[in-house]
Amino acid sequence: MERENLTMLCDFYELTMANGYFLTGKKDTISYFDVFFRSIPDQGGFAIVAGLEDVIHYIRNLRFTESDIEYLRSKQLFDEAFLDYLRHFRFSGDVWAIPEGTPVFPNEPILTVRAPAIEAQFIETYVLLALNHQSLIATKANRIVRAAEGRTVLEFGSRRAQGASAAINGARACFIGGVNGTACTISDERFGVPAGGTMAHSWVQMFDTQYEAFKKYCEIYPTNATLLVDTYNTLRSGIPDAIRAFNEVLKPLGITKCGIRIDSGDMAYLTRKAREMLDEAGWTECKISVSNSLDEYIIKDILSQGAQIDMFGVGERMITAKSEPVFGGVYKVCAVEDEQGNVVPKIKVSENVGKITNPHYKKVWRFYGRDTGKAIADYLCVYDETVDDSGDFEIFAPDAVWKRKVVYNFEAKELQVPIFRNGELVYELPSLKEIRAYCEQQVDTLWDEVKRFDNPHSYYVDLSQKLWDIKQAMLVQAGKKI
Amino acid sequence: MERENLTMLCDFYELTMANGYFLTGKKDTISYFDVFFRSIPDQGGFAIVAGLEDVIHYIRNLRFTESDIEYLRSKQLFDEAFLDYLRHFRFSGDVWAIPEGTPVFPNEPILTVRAPAIEAQFIETYVLLALNHQSLIATKANRIVRAAEGRTVLEFGSRRAQGASAAINGARACFIGGVNGTACTISDERFGVPAGGTMAHSWVQMFDTQYEAFKKYCEIYPTNATLLVDTYNTLRSGIPDAIRAFNEVLKPLGITKCGIRIDSGDMAYLTRKAREMLDEAGWTECKISVSNSLDEYIIKDILSQGAQIDMFGVGERMITAKSEPVFGGVYKVCAVEDEQGNVVPKIKVSENVGKITNPHYKKVWRFYGRDTGKAIADYLCVYDETVDDSGDFEIFAPDAVWKRKVVYNFEAKELQVPIFRNGELVYELPSLKEIRAYCEQQVDTLWDEVKRFDNPHSYYVDLSQKLWDIKQAMLVQAGKKI
Repeated sequence: MERENLTMLCDFYELTMANGYFLTGKKDTISYFDVFFRSIPDQGGFAIVAGLEDVIHYIRNLRFTESDIEYLRSKQLFDEAFLDYLRHFRFSGDVWAIPEGTPVFPNEPILTVRAPAIEAQFIETYVLLALNHQSLIATKANRIVRAAEGRTVLEFGSRRAQGASAAINGARACFIGGVNGTACTISDERFGVPAGGTMAHSWVQMFDTQYEAFKKYCEIYPTNATLLVDTYNTLRSGIPDAIRAFNEVLKPLGITKCGIRIDSGDMAYLTRKAREMLDEAGWTECKISVSNSLDEYIIKDILSQGAQIDMFGVGERMITAKSEPVFGGVYKVCAVEDEQGNVVPKIKVSENVGKITNPHYKKVWRFYGRDTGKAIADYLCVYDETVDDSGDFEIFAPDAVWKRKVVYNFEAKELQVPIFRNGELVYELPSLKEIRAYCEQQVDTLWDEVKRFDNPHSYYVDLSQKLWDIKQAMLVQAGKKI
Repeated sequence: MERENLTMLCDFYELTMANGYFLTGKKDTISYFDVFFRSIPDQGGFAIVAGLEDVIHYIRNLRFTESDIEYLRSKQLFDEAFLDYLRHFRFSGDVWAIPEGTPVFPNEPILTVRAPAIEAQFIETYVLLALNHQSLIATKANRIVRAAEGRTVLEFGSRRAQGASAAINGARACFIGGVNGTACTISDERFGVPAGGTMAHSWVQMFDTQYEAFKKYCEIYPTNATLLVDTYNTLRSGIPDAIRAFNEVLKPLGITKCGIRIDSGDMAYLTRKAREMLDEAGWTECKISVSNSLDEYIIKDILSQGAQIDMFGVGERMITAKSEPVFGGVYKVCAVEDEQGNVVPKIKVSENVGKITNPHYKKVWRFYGRDTGKAIADYLCVYDETVDDSGDFEIFAPDAVWKRKVVYNFEAKELQVPIFRNGELVYELPSLKEIRAYCEQQVDTLWDEVKRFDNPHSYYVDLSQKLWDIKQAMLVQAGKKI
């Protein structure tokens, strides 16, 4: 499917810096940038990373058109040789990333770029935008799905999404996070997120009576008849009219599967009453759907009140991650290579201790207990270190070095996988269904304490002794320079 | 510029209903749908409507491709005659809308569609998505711009936007709301939102010293040198290094205009100190920019503390409207035409009184005082009513009919303008700069009480006596039916 060329979706400073690297002879300095985030939305215990496929698509399609170059020339800021260079600009570097659907934690590199400075710098905005958006939504969707405790969750939010890609890629991210389907047709066509839907209030209003609207709908879609019962009054007319239509159209066909949807009112009360009425009328297989400003908190709340719900249609609060609509991923230089090819670590100091970066070209490992299968800790080390998981292994909290812990009987797995090598895609993209299944399986490796909605346990993301020592030395050095 | 075909960005139920209208002989029933919203984000006194240009683009480009039809066929839900009909599906109806940049209020139709049911229903999702997103962001941006009290505001949020269109169209909406420019290059290229930007922390880190990074930048961009001074320590090294670079590079060239940007730390304190240091060094024309998690509340707060700021770079809190990231516009049928062409009003009743719709094909007027130029009230009436603004005019609050008010010496202006007529675009699209200027001018017509950030005055949106009578009669009728 044809997509827009989004090369120019960059922050303008990436172009002024690119021109600057070009003119100062720094354009080919091999640089390492990490994407990481500092805090988990909704004070959750983990995030779900997503958006990599979109990043890959973007990087592979990077190219400036002649009209882009003409536009840039009109700014009277850029060197002609630089503009000429942009004609053949492609990404020639390496990318490693943690696969989509993986639970991730603050301060670990979810994506790492190694490339000539001019290229690595240029892709900053789009890489962040794609990962931030889809990780935000996948994380939120996963919370909502877990709150629904096995019931079906559908994504209904396109109309309140923040623009077209928020709807299209948002539905994809929701599916990764565990929802069962979407109302967004194009996300099905493009990505295979199963799309479905039945009727709006306007369908009911277009007929002389609600009963006629329901009857016609059942006649057209006998095997897919979910009737919206709250246009006039759910209990007094909506459900009675639905039962009458089911009886008159579906029953003679021997169809027992059908549904009602309630879009307003007191969900706990109405669904209990609806269940009684449907069961009494013999429609025990009729599914009850609800869809009105739902999120994980409301779902937990109405379920705890005995609501009788088979399916949640979740709209604006999932597609915008309303309770915290920003995923704060950042893109920071962590190393450069000198002329001899030595990797020289870089650090960003800050008066705000939480904003100090982890320097160096790093590797990220996750330790799983061999007995439990559960994730124990993540471990960042310098790229040339390895982890020996055959025996005991001491780790420590980077902000509390006296808190040491010996890990044993564990398996260490590297989290990042190679995506691009010298500009070539070397990653076999999993299908969306595979990503979703992987996400579910990986979330299962987390202890319940990490998965709690409120006050979750802080999962360990530790530094190797070597990395910690380098970082401390750099901070001391930086302190002296200032 | 090539854009994606977003015809399939619809809720699936629009297709099931379309097929249903097709099969029940209702597809050509002329229907009227209103877009309106029920509450103003951030408990503000007004919203700014935006997104119409995108809606126009969408409607003009509506068409199903063969592969779309093939996809739909695979769902085994749709009639073959319907699928064939989709091949030539175009929008043939009428649209009226309140122009972009206009302040709008709850419960008034900001866009009205009159079209065969099948067409009017189909465009629901995209129309809402575009208007909801851009109105949300324009409204938020206008709040932030007003908080900045005439200082420059730039949009810096692409990397935290909810997907590509959220960044691209979001920057456009921010510009309508009053920001001066953006960092989002493609929004400049595509829409003419002025884009600019200078350097990231990584530029500073790529050089051996901060001073060298600054000096090189000044050499390359002597007339556009805004230096980011907080990579190491703003006051101890950032500003001294910047002054040194300005002195060594800009001064000999006779350049007095330059800038610094501070991206972390205590803005009120740091900018006051920075101003002193720059002034003492003779750089009185050096502009001070700040950019760290800003919104209207923080801007007001730091300005009240005497912060010395010329320019605000506003990121995630504007581009996602973080404090309230949903604009709740809805799309509701308000009338249909019978076979004789009579307009038959429709109403959506609800147990929640706030969700009852205003029925009928309506017109919206705004009354301006002839002496003050200020907006007095908006007035909804039935399409065949007119407003005589030559004398006194009595209006009343629809939820408190005893509150009557006589308006005099006023001018009535119809707010909606024709956009499509029989599927043809009849609206001359204003330029983005014109929209922005119109917005500023229209916001000026609001009393300060409506523009307050906290507890603003509720602007009047009144119904004509005729419309109110029809609505009441319909509610009584609906009550009996239930």
